[in-house]
Amino acid sequence: MGTALLTDKYEFTMLQAALRDGTADRKCVFELFTRRLPAGRRYGVVAGTGRFLEELTSYRFEEEDLEYLRAEGVLDERTLDYLADYRFTGDIRGYAEGEIYFPHSPLMVVESTFAQGVLLETLALSILNYDSAVASAASRMTTAAGSRPCLDMGARRAHEQAAVSAARAAVIAGFAGTSNYEAARRHGLKAIGTAAHAWTLLHDSEEEAFRSQVDSLGVSTTLLVDTYDVTQGVETAIKVAGPELGAVRLDSGDLGVQAAEVRKQLDSLGATNTKITVTSDLDEHAIAALASAPVDSYGVGTRLVTGSGEPTSSMVYKLVLRENTQGVMEPVQKASTAKASVGGTKSAVRELNSHGRAASEMVLVGSDAARETFVGSAQSVRPLHVPLVTAGVVHEEWLGGEGLSRAITRHRTSRDELPRNALRLSVGDPAIPTVTRSLD
Amino acid sequence: MGTALLTDKYEFTMLQAALRDGTADRKCVFELFTRRLPAGRRYGVVAGTGRFLEELTSYRFEEEDLEYLRAEGVLDERTLDYLADYRFTGDIRGYAEGEIYFPHSPLMVVESTFAQGVLLETLALSILNYDSAVASAASRMTTAAGSRPCLDMGARRAHEQAAVSAARAAVIAGFAGTSNYEAARRHGLKAIGTAAHAWTLLHDSEEEAFRSQVDSLGVSTTLLVDTYDVTQGVETAIKVAGPELGAVRLDSGDLGVQAAEVRKQLDSLGATNTKITVTSDLDEHAIAALASAPVDSYGVGTRLVTGSGEPTSSMVYKLVLRENTQGVMEPVQKASTAKASVGGTKSAVRELNSHGRAASEMVLVGSDAARETFVGSAQSVRPLHVPLVTAGVVHEEWLGGEGLSRAITRHRTSRDELPRNALRLSVGDPAIPTVTRSLD
Repeated sequence: MGTALLTDKYEFTMLQAALRDGTADRKCVFELFTRRLPAGRRYGVVAGTGRFLEELTSYRFEEEDLEYLRAEGVLDERTLDYLADYRFTGDIRGYAEGEIYFPHSPLMVVESTFAQGVLLETLALSILNYDSAVASAASRMTTAAGSRPCLDMGARRAHEQAAVSAARAAVIAGFAGTSNYEAARRHGLKAIGTAAHAWTLLHDSEEEAFRSQVDSLGVSTTLLVDTYDVTQGVETAIKVAGPELGAVRLDSGDLGVQAAEVRKQLDSLGATNTKITVTSDLDEHAIAALASAPVDSYGVGTRLVTGSGEPTSSMVYKLVLRENTQGVMEPVQKASTAKASVGGTKSAVRELNSHGRAASEMVLVGSDAARETFVGSAQSVRPLHVPLVTAGVVHEEWLGGEGLSRAITRHRTSRDELPRNALRLSVGDPAIPTVTRSLD
Repeated sequence: MGTALLTDKYEFTMLQAALRDGTADRKCVFELFTRRLPAGRRYGVVAGTGRFLEELTSYRFEEEDLEYLRAEGVLDERTLDYLADYRFTGDIRGYAEGEIYFPHSPLMVVESTFAQGVLLETLALSILNYDSAVASAASRMTTAAGSRPCLDMGARRAHEQAAVSAARAAVIAGFAGTSNYEAARRHGLKAIGTAAHAWTLLHDSEEEAFRSQVDSLGVSTTLLVDTYDVTQGVETAIKVAGPELGAVRLDSGDLGVQAAEVRKQLDSLGATNTKITVTSDLDEHAIAALASAPVDSYGVGTRLVTGSGEPTSSMVYKLVLRENTQGVMEPVQKASTAKASVGGTKSAVRELNSHGRAASEMVLVGSDAARETFVGSAQSVRPLHVPLVTAGVVHEEWLGGEGLSRAITRHRTSRDELPRNALRLSVGDPAIPTVTRSLD
């Protein structure tokens, strides 16, 4: 089955009414943004862009989709005919995947007819809201971990398909691999993992379990040493594998204290190169607390795939500009106070200070020409919008392995550019202010 | 692509080592359970069972899966051959979908060889952890809503595929429909939704937008009246649609105050049957706070699909019993304090008091024979385990539309059986105690 129905029904009922009243072909600009970061977060990380663009290339209504809609009895034949021929032929520009964002950053700007743009709302939001939530949490974890690798082990604590996307989002924010084979396959990630407690429990003794694992996977494997008694487990591990053992894993208890004891024990057994990986209920704060412990890598599960307390990103997709009956483009905006938005087409630049550090997020409202003039004349601003889709054609560099690789680099570069304060894990305001500037 | 790789790599490396050392065919019992409810929750709701069983019927390794694994270079040919022929031929019993659960409820018991059972860990957990989190939150929302319908509008705030499962889980816990077309199609749910703010903004006036919508969808439609001024919006809505208008929707502001004003206005315009639906940032607490407001239905988004603060269920999948070298079944358990588990094969009954209300969750540890004797002799206990899979064959009544329908009924019946206190939304302990009873 295709993905074209991963969409809210109201997008289709609006399409139908617009086809009837002649507004379907009005030129429109939709903007994807968020009004706020999760409480206390200092920055967010854009992720999902590549996945969205991938979906867009195959966003088609197949016969089985149309049959379902026909059978439901709500949409008329004209609407179904429109859907049968649907192809997105508009333009999309926005933040590169992996980029840092702030409140009101115009993350994606969709320029198309109303009919073409309205159908993409839910799919774009679902993908960006979830993937960005994971990447935003992951970025804090890799910051806390410093040079020690973080590994995704969260598949079991997320929807089975969300888990695959979570692994990708985590890698964008600096994670080194994933336990999930499908994620590794689909996104070209490094798959990791060796054995669970069940492995030790399956055998009549821990020693038998370790011996069998080493026979099968070699001495470079990671042995899980906390099924019974950690000290005994480490002793058995080195007895079986020798001092060349790759790593031991700790999955319970006071990880800092245990890691120190295990390190000492490993060293005393001559296993000075045997690494220690820890995997129990970690989040960015737990990782930070282990900074001085002799830990070599972190396996993160639940808190990664659930965005460390913020499992979604409150991004919205709003109509901000549209053609009126005279064919003139007009900014539009909702007027109710709580959810007010700023009409008009937008782009953004990151203003840099004299040290090359981010100083503000400048949201520029105005025509393409005015924006180009401004960017050309401004000192020390980095434009944030890149072309993602032109006349319906997706720019391929954002897709697949190249897209992922660019996103990883983009994230690292943009995070390095932030003021140092931005990387603190404590509750705080957005690291830089968002300034809206009207150019026309 | 199949779903067989939605699995953690370590399940495969354990399989390989087990095939080498002869333990792969040891008879094993794996148990899926949780040690705790989310903080302050009084009960949980099992969901995802039907989806898991559906996946199990097609859990096969296709040539492309095997090629990926071969190319990765970790698994040997013997393991790949085993995977090529993989069929689950064991037994699974567990809680019926929709059932209430508590800490240590043995939600699913998998009896098979080690090799067969170990591969299912991640898929079972991913599905049950997410779906149960959504159903557990949804059950509190439908409790708070009483007889007023709750509708899922959360697709945009969840991973695009998780959203489809969330809608299903919500319906199990009493939701009446979903905005997501794919969820409606795949699970046979009612699809709902009419128009967004973009619809009004697209037109030169609110009146034009309303008129076009009514022309297309009829007067029974729902008009969104808060794009500009609610009082004006309601007046225009009735002017355009007449007093037979189906409903108005409020999506911002103080919903309680606004609903009261709008109800008064609608009544004064003769639109006494026009309903009011509200959809802004709702959760179970917000719904409860609107109990006395003249609201007819609730559209719930973010907080539904993210489990209302608890986006996963901390369920685990543990080996609890296995054959030893003598062919005798032995209970096994991890010995570390923090994550201790109880070995042995388990089932469960809900003990009822003289009023037919749930009094305790009795987890029974022991042989099938001992369990049957106990249940046969006990007064007022309701057995909680049902057969889900027998000798590899999935019991079809848990699948598809019938499965969903049974789950809805099961949930309603089991929730009605709880002590009244269980339905309070405030922070509390599990509604009934879990008692573990050894029968052998």
